[in-house]
Amino acid sequence: MSDRTPSTEVLVVGGGMAGLAGALALRSNGAEVTLVERAPEFGEVGAGLQMAPNASRVLKRWGLLEKALEIGVRPKHLVFRDALTGEELTRQTLGGEFEERYGAPYVVIHRSDLHRILLEACQQAGVRLVNDVVVDSVETVNGRGIAHTARGEVYEADVVIGADGLKSTLRAAVTQDGPVSSSYVAYRGTVPITDETPAADLEDVIVYLGPDCHLVQYPLRKGELLNTVAVFKSPSFDRGEEQYGGVDELEAAYRDCIPAVQAALQNLATGIRWPMYDREPIENWIDGRLVLMGDAAHPMLQYLAQGACQALEDAAALQDSTLGSVFTDDGVNARAWDLAISDFNVARAGRTARVQRTARVWGESWHVSGVARVLRNLLFKSRKDGDFQYNDWLYGQTSEALVETRS
Amino acid sequence: MSDRTPSTEVLVVGGGMAGLAGALALRSNGAEVTLVERAPEFGEVGAGLQMAPNASRVLKRWGLLEKALEIGVRPKHLVFRDALTGEELTRQTLGGEFEERYGAPYVVIHRSDLHRILLEACQQAGVRLVNDVVVDSVETVNGRGIAHTARGEVYEADVVIGADGLKSTLRAAVTQDGPVSSSYVAYRGTVPITDETPAADLEDVIVYLGPDCHLVQYPLRKGELLNTVAVFKSPSFDRGEEQYGGVDELEAAYRDCIPAVQAALQNLATGIRWPMYDREPIENWIDGRLVLMGDAAHPMLQYLAQGACQALEDAAALQDSTLGSVFTDDGVNARAWDLAISDFNVARAGRTARVQRTARVWGESWHVSGVARVLRNLLFKSRKDGDFQYNDWLYGQTSEALVETRS
Repeated sequence: MSDRTPSTEVLVVGGGMAGLAGALALRSNGAEVTLVERAPEFGEVGAGLQMAPNASRVLKRWGLLEKALEIGVRPKHLVFRDALTGEELTRQTLGGEFEERYGAPYVVIHRSDLHRILLEACQQAGVRLVNDVVVDSVETVNGRGIAHTARGEVYEADVVIGADGLKSTLRAAVTQDGPVSSSYVAYRGTVPITDETPAADLEDVIVYLGPDCHLVQYPLRKGELLNTVAVFKSPSFDRGEEQYGGVDELEAAYRDCIPAVQAALQNLATGIRWPMYDREPIENWIDGRLVLMGDAAHPMLQYLAQGACQALEDAAALQDSTLGSVFTDDGVNARAWDLAISDFNVARAGRTARVQRTARVWGESWHVSGVARVLRNLLFKSRKDGDFQYNDWLYGQTSEALVETRS
Repeated sequence: MSDRTPSTEVLVVGGGMAGLAGALALRSNGAEVTLVERAPEFGEVGAGLQMAPNASRVLKRWGLLEKALEIGVRPKHLVFRDALTGEELTRQTLGGEFEERYGAPYVVIHRSDLHRILLEACQQAGVRLVNDVVVDSVETVNGRGIAHTARGEVYEADVVIGADGLKSTLRAAVTQDGPVSSSYVAYRGTVPITDETPAADLEDVIVYLGPDCHLVQYPLRKGELLNTVAVFKSPSFDRGEEQYGGVDELEAAYRDCIPAVQAALQNLATGIRWPMYDREPIENWIDGRLVLMGDAAHPMLQYLAQGACQALEDAAALQDSTLGSVFTDDGVNARAWDLAISDFNVARAGRTARVQRTARVWGESWHVSGVARVLRNLLFKSRKDGDFQYNDWLYGQTSEALVETRS
């Protein structure tokens, strides 16, 4: 390697939620971390994000939960309703017993706000942040990761974290798969809450379930903004059209829904359409000294609202698996990286695969019609507020359990 | 009318379960009853029949329950299992609290046994039973029903009960509808229980639920016979073939089921295939002095096992609506028939329509696959033995409630 090759202990590829969280986690262990991002500036597109306790526990660990709570909202309930009738199907109270059980609050926050909190934490912690860098490939030579950029530069590091998202370039090192379209499209929007905003539900996360469609609403920014997400199955996707899921299909998809749902479509920004993708779970995220995390490793449909949450869990697990092995009281033991990232991979792949698969089935159950809708509604209505049987596996203290998995 | 016209107070057309029950009920009120049957002999084809408490209560009223129990079986449980995994989904204990709550036992009995019990009761009560009579039409002249037979005979009665089943000829007087094919076909069979019969489950009604198919098993004749019913969706029905649902389709339909289910197909008599039909509910069962009952009025799919049960409920309701109005302490008041059959119709049409509709949805829920199966299984498993919320409307004391409806 030439003298001009940037050398670092950890190179993180991707400055989204996963990359920032991974960088911060390893920096917290004392690593020298460089994060490269392809865009000319750091930032997040999109609207609101639901941070369940399994994710807010990670923020708490890093001392960032207070910042999130300053700008975010703690919704009072998570409520499911039938979009055709408005009937309430089930609800979960999110404070009190729920928060105690899971050790952290349920928080909804604008994606850009959470991203900024993580970015500022990285800056303050001394992560080296570099924009305008596109990493095309990573090879491992003599126990070090060598990242080749589109401009012909080379970065060298003990380990390279591939956090380059759903359309990950680096994932090609472990599998030749591609994103799987769900045939569903989302539109999102945030509008100011005014005196004319219908007063009902402004303290809750409300999910309206309809045949082949659903709509989610919740408040953001201390209750100043109303966040709306509409997700529907695109008929033109099945016809093989590339630009599927246009505004005409959006309006048609909600035609049979109650007026409150139809009115909420007015709150959407129709300029950006978000086709919904995931990928099949994969077991191996490692190629030499490259390891994937976040959406690059386990992109998932949004029905469990766990995309960013699982990225935060990944980061916490990476922090755990490297502390005391790579990063010891006696300094850095770079030879331990192979075992540490393997531990991380083993600890995380089963869980994230379960979240990926469950998100698909869970989403399917939202969009059913006919007798399946009858069954779904009876099942949901049979559940009592405070029945945690469907929540424990997801929100329970799993990242803490990683240490047990490893020992 | 000529002197040779048989004249009677009540003419029942059809000697199946409904007709016999109706004849017996009215005879119990003191009516002179003639029952005509198209077949040269009385009898029942088919295998087992489930008599839920709403029906066994009627037998109890007529003093026939003991006879049914002498030859029938009181199953210990009603058990639902997934046909693909064998997993138990839910169970209802049928003795104890269940029997107390509904005031009569759950009994399974061979169709021919129940038919014979009703036939003998009619004979002993003095119902005039006539074979080889096909009634083509009924007209009402001067407040009397005039039944015209295929051979040109005429029967005259104060009221004619049309109990001529699913393919009812007399129903044409009130509607021009036809049977609706469900695209499902049943095969049935009874085999002796031997030492080699798998010992499990011989005391229960077991229903295995599979995608587009199900299988029911229970003991008959004091546990000497094993009754099996296999019901599956016929692919060739959708292709428009007339003789749909052959044995090849039977075998293919259960290909993915557990060995216990596949083995049970050996117990079926494959010589008779039973396409499953119902009809849309209708409100009016009356034309002049003709009134329909049983399958002629409300044919239903078999999923709630209520075809014969609702016929027995009809008979009890007819008994109630005519006692004290047509049949009084001062003799027969034939003018009251119009009101009495109208009361009967009003009291029964809503309930039987609900049973017809629920049977369709209930059956659909048995045959689902994919996410609907996941939801169905979770819903069923969430139910506890002894939770009567889905049973009360059906098995509760409804025929007794008829008197209230009327007053």
